[in-house]
Amino acid sequence: MKINGKSWRTIWLENGGESIGVIDQTQLPHSLLTKSFKDYKEVACAISSMVVRGAPLIGVAGAYGLMLALKQDPTDLSLNTAFQELKATRPTAINLEWALNRIYQRVLHLTPSERALAAMQEATLIAEEDAQACESIGNHGLDLIYKLAHKKKKSSKGEVVNILTHCNAGWLATVDWGTALSPIYKAFHKGISIHVWVDETRPRNQGANLTAFELAGEGVPHTLVVDNAGGHLMQNGLVDAVFVGSDRVTRSGDAFNKVGTYLKALAAFDNSVPFYVATPFSTIDWNKYQRLSDIKIENRSDNEVTHVEGLIIGEQLNNQLGRVRIAPSKTKGFNPGFDITPSHLITSFITEDGIIKPSELNLESIHPQNY
Amino acid sequence: MKINGKSWRTIWLENGGESIGVIDQTQLPHSLLTKSFKDYKEVACAISSMVVRGAPLIGVAGAYGLMLALKQDPTDLSLNTAFQELKATRPTAINLEWALNRIYQRVLHLTPSERALAAMQEATLIAEEDAQACESIGNHGLDLIYKLAHKKKKSSKGEVVNILTHCNAGWLATVDWGTALSPIYKAFHKGISIHVWVDETRPRNQGANLTAFELAGEGVPHTLVVDNAGGHLMQNGLVDAVFVGSDRVTRSGDAFNKVGTYLKALAAFDNSVPFYVATPFSTIDWNKYQRLSDIKIENRSDNEVTHVEGLIIGEQLNNQLGRVRIAPSKTKGFNPGFDITPSHLITSFITEDGIIKPSELNLESIHPQNY
Repeated sequence: MKINGKSWRTIWLENGGESIGVIDQTQLPHSLLTKSFKDYKEVACAISSMVVRGAPLIGVAGAYGLMLALKQDPTDLSLNTAFQELKATRPTAINLEWALNRIYQRVLHLTPSERALAAMQEATLIAEEDAQACESIGNHGLDLIYKLAHKKKKSSKGEVVNILTHCNAGWLATVDWGTALSPIYKAFHKGISIHVWVDETRPRNQGANLTAFELAGEGVPHTLVVDNAGGHLMQNGLVDAVFVGSDRVTRSGDAFNKVGTYLKALAAFDNSVPFYVATPFSTIDWNKYQRLSDIKIENRSDNEVTHVEGLIIGEQLNNQLGRVRIAPSKTKGFNPGFDITPSHLITSFITEDGIIKPSELNLESIHPQNY
Repeated sequence: MKINGKSWRTIWLENGGESIGVIDQTQLPHSLLTKSFKDYKEVACAISSMVVRGAPLIGVAGAYGLMLALKQDPTDLSLNTAFQELKATRPTAINLEWALNRIYQRVLHLTPSERALAAMQEATLIAEEDAQACESIGNHGLDLIYKLAHKKKKSSKGEVVNILTHCNAGWLATVDWGTALSPIYKAFHKGISIHVWVDETRPRNQGANLTAFELAGEGVPHTLVVDNAGGHLMQNGLVDAVFVGSDRVTRSGDAFNKVGTYLKALAAFDNSVPFYVATPFSTIDWNKYQRLSDIKIENRSDNEVTHVEGLIIGEQLNNQLGRVRIAPSKTKGFNPGFDITPSHLITSFITEDGIIKPSELNLESIHPQNY
């Protein structure tokens, strides 16, 4: 998608696979910088520190990370070590484990000398499939937005379709197009009047930093609100649908996503606003769990709660990235990264294969053999 | 209540009523500064800019503001002008209008020369009544916390009672004691094991800036979380009750409070967590409304959404209050200050006269004659 009129992807191969390049998402929206990695440990660090983030993107980044490890050392030991290190960087998003497994299975029975090339081909395939899946999600979601626009016109409540989104599930969270934002881009390009409520998504402000940035890049009308405001907007009829992404969808139809998603889903349900989770099949966890609490929810540093990052405003300080502390110095924080939106609050999933009800995920018939 | 071991109130008379003093709440928790006002226009500005905030406190500040206006000029014109200007500073909290009306009714039929003294007496009475009402709310709420502690012990889920609060409804929002936090202080002083989840309450971070600060001042154990985290905490059994304040409670039992309160109430309801609104009678709006939308919800500057204030961290910048911009420079925000928690989500109101169910507010029998 576009930044200042130029097309970008979030991740790419450099020098025939000698290194990989990424957009440094910790610097957005204030600076557009890229980073280049030759070593899988740098990739692991980039995933942990959220230089790259978003469930689909960290899957692709992990796959390329394993490729870099095999370029340096194609032995079983190297393969296993890098696999474990990369997998441990973020525990909740299922895509990372899924993509690492794909590379692992692809190279395991090859001779060491064949592994790096095969890993590069497989990682590139994963990246291409992700971009295609996301574009396909966009097309299926577009049908939903057409219906929302039609309903809106009939109700004479204005023409603009207002969609609320939480966190960033746009192209920056994937290779291209995005999940939740892909239908919005498709609709905007088709000339549908659309406006996006972007919530700020503390603690890391991916709404303000990333979603607002990428919507601006494509020219999509949007307004920033605090995470607290979504309920008020829905109470006042200002939201026609909620579109979010997901880090892991269980076959019971429950969605793990950025903390706060559950609160928006409750408000949507209470106000009869449809709530859609846009997700490629790579985000679906086909395991059967006794309890959802068996799935680990990542707790991150409490510095993310007690401090906020941004561009420092003030004389002599302008254009300098920095942090402010917002809490008393001795106050500690707790920082869970995700919550669970139960299936009964989800209207439908928007997948690359079409619109699926939560109850349909449990059908063996749609369980793709290759996932 | 205490700051660094010393007892404070939020507002006080100086020099026999020549001026009023307040804690400057825009500087907390980083600096403890006070401000002194001789002119009602300064008081109006202090209310608008949230130097003083919290429904009960802005009522008292407004009353003292009207006193200052009458000291300068006790004519009807002055009385009416100052009344309107002070009332217009914040539209949603009912206490401001209520307290201004009390002063107005008290002085209207007096001769101009008698007005300033009468206004001072009435404003001081309002302040004392507020402190007493809040302490009484604390005692009634203490009974609820005793029950929660007893239930917790019986369930063998540990002894600590975990209470989540939103925004700041502590002593800083009132003259002393607070509303939602008053029962917590009472329980803590009684030796009950209590822990408070303080949510950050964007956009102005009153949770991080004020609630954490005042709980620390009294030594009450607390942990800061982002506004998004409350649902996750409740899903995981980490919240025994939610205690919030209110800016206006209608006789239909619906509570206007800081935006985001509604989302916490939905999560509490969904997880069978009791949800209490602590409120003095001065916050109850006894008018009958056809529609709740007839009550104005204040929209504040979008700078509060696109920027965050705090203590700048970094070499040479330490200990300097400042702001960071978190959004792209061209992204606009929308900043509604309040939302409505419908009565069916509220377990009970904690008032100075005891615990009242939402449905009981509509009874003429409890409508106090003096409100």
